[in-house]
Amino acid sequence: MSTLYARIADHYLQALQAGTLRAGDRFPSVRQLMRTHEVSLSTALQACRRLEEAGWLEARARSGYFVARPRRQALPPAAGPGTRAIDPAAYVGISAHVSAILARGQQQAVGVNLALAVAPPPMYPADALAGIMRRRLLQAPRLLTTMTRRHGNPLLRTALARRALERGITAAPEEIIVTQGCIEAVNLALRAVTQPGDTVAVESPTFYGLLQILEGLGLRAVELPTHPKDGLSVEALSFALDSDPSLRAVVVMPTLHNPLGCTMPDERKAALVALCAARGVPLIEDDIYGELLAQPPRTLKSFDTGGDVIHCGSLNKVLAPGLRLGWMLAGRWQARAEMLKYTLSRFPEELGQAAAAEFVASPAYERHLRRLRDTLRSHREAYADQVAAHFPAGTRLTLPDGGLLLWLQLPDGASGDALFTRALAHGIQIAPGSMFSTGRRYDHCIRLGCGRAPDEELLAALKRLGRMVDGPARGR
Amino acid sequence: MSTLYARIADHYLQALQAGTLRAGDRFPSVRQLMRTHEVSLSTALQACRRLEEAGWLEARARSGYFVARPRRQALPPAAGPGTRAIDPAAYVGISAHVSAILARGQQQAVGVNLALAVAPPPMYPADALAGIMRRRLLQAPRLLTTMTRRHGNPLLRTALARRALERGITAAPEEIIVTQGCIEAVNLALRAVTQPGDTVAVESPTFYGLLQILEGLGLRAVELPTHPKDGLSVEALSFALDSDPSLRAVVVMPTLHNPLGCTMPDERKAALVALCAARGVPLIEDDIYGELLAQPPRTLKSFDTGGDVIHCGSLNKVLAPGLRLGWMLAGRWQARAEMLKYTLSRFPEELGQAAAAEFVASPAYERHLRRLRDTLRSHREAYADQVAAHFPAGTRLTLPDGGLLLWLQLPDGASGDALFTRALAHGIQIAPGSMFSTGRRYDHCIRLGCGRAPDEELLAALKRLGRMVDGPARGR
Ligand SMILES: Cc1ncc(COP(=O)(O)O)c(C=O)c1O
Ligand SMILES: Cc1ncc(COP(=O)(O)O)c(C=O)c1O
Repeated sequence: MSTLYARIADHYLQALQAGTLRAGDRFPSVRQLMRTHEVSLSTALQACRRLEEAGWLEARARSGYFVARPRRQALPPAAGPGTRAIDPAAYVGISAHVSAILARGQQQAVGVNLALAVAPPPMYPADALAGIMRRRLLQAPRLLTTMTRRHGNPLLRTALARRALERGITAAPEEIIVTQGCIEAVNLALRAVTQPGDTVAVESPTFYGLLQILEGLGLRAVELPTHPKDGLSVEALSFALDSDPSLRAVVVMPTLHNPLGCTMPDERKAALVALCAARGVPLIEDDIYGELLAQPPRTLKSFDTGGDVIHCGSLNKVLAPGLRLGWMLAGRWQARAEMLKYTLSRFPEELGQAAAAEFVASPAYERHLRRLRDTLRSHREAYADQVAAHFPAGTRLTLPDGGLLLWLQLPDGASGDALFTRALAHGIQIAPGSMFSTGRRYDHCIRLGCGRAPDEELLAALKRLGRMVDGPARGR
Repeated sequence: MSTLYARIADHYLQALQAGTLRAGDRFPSVRQLMRTHEVSLSTALQACRRLEEAGWLEARARSGYFVARPRRQALPPAAGPGTRAIDPAAYVGISAHVSAILARGQQQAVGVNLALAVAPPPMYPADALAGIMRRRLLQAPRLLTTMTRRHGNPLLRTALARRALERGITAAPEEIIVTQGCIEAVNLALRAVTQPGDTVAVESPTFYGLLQILEGLGLRAVELPTHPKDGLSVEALSFALDSDPSLRAVVVMPTLHNPLGCTMPDERKAALVALCAARGVPLIEDDIYGELLAQPPRTLKSFDTGGDVIHCGSLNKVLAPGLRLGWMLAGRWQARAEMLKYTLSRFPEELGQAAAAEFVASPAYERHLRRLRDTLRSHREAYADQVAAHFPAGTRLTLPDGGLLLWLQLPDGASGDALFTRALAHGIQIAPGSMFSTGRRYDHCIRLGCGRAPDEELLAALKRLGRMVDGPARGR
């Protein structure tokens, strides 16, 4: 006996198979389904999710469900984390593995690099930035020989504070600490709120750079279930807080997560901030990809009333990968973070900051972002289509709403590490899932960066990659 | 009954007082004294030292003794550390004090800043560097939008490796890790070789920035006697190594020490390296001011055969204070330092590195350095003359052979902190001795940076400062 929602899903499945509803069509809204079939919200939603999981529908942020393109109908979304006991916190020992992976990529001639989490140089406004810099250098060459300013360039801090406003954050320019990239900001945040030996809760999977930081600082990680669509499980965090009194900080990428690509819904963000505030646990938000969403969603920081959230951002993914410009808002730990930043590396070079400030404050920045987002969307679609066409059955992928990362689950039994090795021998580099967790939980996953345009060489490489998934280990 | 060396000294004292030997004259060499008076080397040396300590003679590196200028005859060199029991290692708690001092300097309008350890912007080749950068930006704007290169720009690493050669260091360009200033290099060095809770031996006094790093990393400091002329006592280090098994690293500024200005003689450097190698203790060399000496002396690293020395340098004091470019050679800890650098902040922006590389590799760099050294020498002399003329009797100062730092001992009972407060109320900023040690050992000392040209305002400020030494605490 099939359930109500399954019967509704079947009804639409026939329409889809018959071609009554076609690729790209908007699917009836949840409200419409409720009215048409006289069912509850949850039943209507379950019906949609079932079709989505079967690969027939695609959810688009804020616009509901659409009929998936035909080739992608073979590519169901990644499975959720399921329910599992949370592993105990453990010291991180991943750097050797990550370094080995990175080093192997450097030893080999790589023709198609799918391991990058950044777009190629031509997709950023190099000429405009260079023009601003040349002018500044002509007017004020001595900025090269003047000690750098405390906490960063005031114009850049003002420009960043203005943009933060649009993300729901009210911050004075004086609160912004300019850092050497987001990575330094996260380092400082962790050093501000933890001692070696403490436990830090992170998403699972999570950015390998974060795991390396934890290892370097002698911190233990507890990896929490994170859904490829909705992000971190707040319940799991609550449970971890109950069971590990040494849990001293939480690091989350709530918007366009690396590697999953997911964005936490606003309610979940609010619940997360509320939980951390109630427990007095510092919450570190890594928002490096935030501006790659068309309507950048709310930040964790925007829900923060007591200064419990440390917000970290960067211009490296959105404006200029060659400028090492990040920043942070350190909430209750502002004074300590400022002191640590001074102690660690002083303050960034003036020239890059001045150029970034002028560009970010101009309308050209919004134009650039729109172009970048549109281009990346088309890349994501083209990559996903090619994966759908050429990867073996059982491959799964949740198409993210923005950014440039695709997280693939390979079919049962396939190994990301083996694929990495095989692909590298053919000049194709990928990021194997094993980099994104201290456990062995994602060995059947890979991350693909889709910054590069889907030109012929790229499409051929993806096709080849798909063919290699089940093949025998060749190369080294 | 006076000793032999005292009688010889008296003999020359009469000649000096009579004006037979006049300011600026070369004093008979130690060899001449040995021959003339038929005495041993040690007796001849003792005679010279006695006249030096009384302020009549000045030693110049590699050229022997000269008759001091008349005004400076009133200014004897700083006293040595004497013999004292070594304080036990202690956790560092200086950041609040240092931050308060730095913050007070920022709140106040400062007309004459004598607290800087750097020369003013016009003394560095801003136009030449800006010219190189403008050309690079025109040719290759995309270096702004390309991910920065691992470990730094190859041309800069080559240029730095070449210069290191002249300091007795044989290093491949690939061994040079480019950092965000010397301060980041020292941070990385300490993180590479210590764990929180370990003890680190440092000079006393030492650069406050180093004490802040130790505090931030949860390390304990043992402060070792350091002579204002010959630097760190190697015997004291040997003793400390015997008595504290948790001593895990030594950080030394062997050339143009901050704040003392002293340079360790080569034999002492050799002994220090040998001691650390024998004990298997990592030796971190901060050489930031090294190139400010006319014939840059040997580095600790040049004595290193087993990779026990981590050498840290920077272009910030010698080429461009606005470029945050430092570097390190990490010896046995090379792989770990590379990993930590990547984990902490990735790699520096390309533009500044490219410009620095081109300039450092050109003959213009040597010309610039010569000019900078000459200018700073004249500043040191003029500052010292003014101090001699206007500071109260009992003030002591050892004139360094290079660099821009003067370390003053105030007369008994005078307080550097009180002078700092009083001076600040008059728009004059100095660095009080209390910043340079975790104990209260240097509260009667101050550090003066003599980067600024001795113009009228500056000379007036020094005069005023001298008058304030004994005055009552005014201002806040
Ligand atoms: C989630 C995340 N945080 C931080 C970083 C590092 O950022 P930055 O280059 O600004 O230091 C990256 C880069 O890949 C990232 O993906
Ligand atoms: C001895 C010493 N080491 C390190 C530094 C910091 O160097 P950088 O500006 O290259 O980070 C300074 C600056 O004053 C210093 O005096």
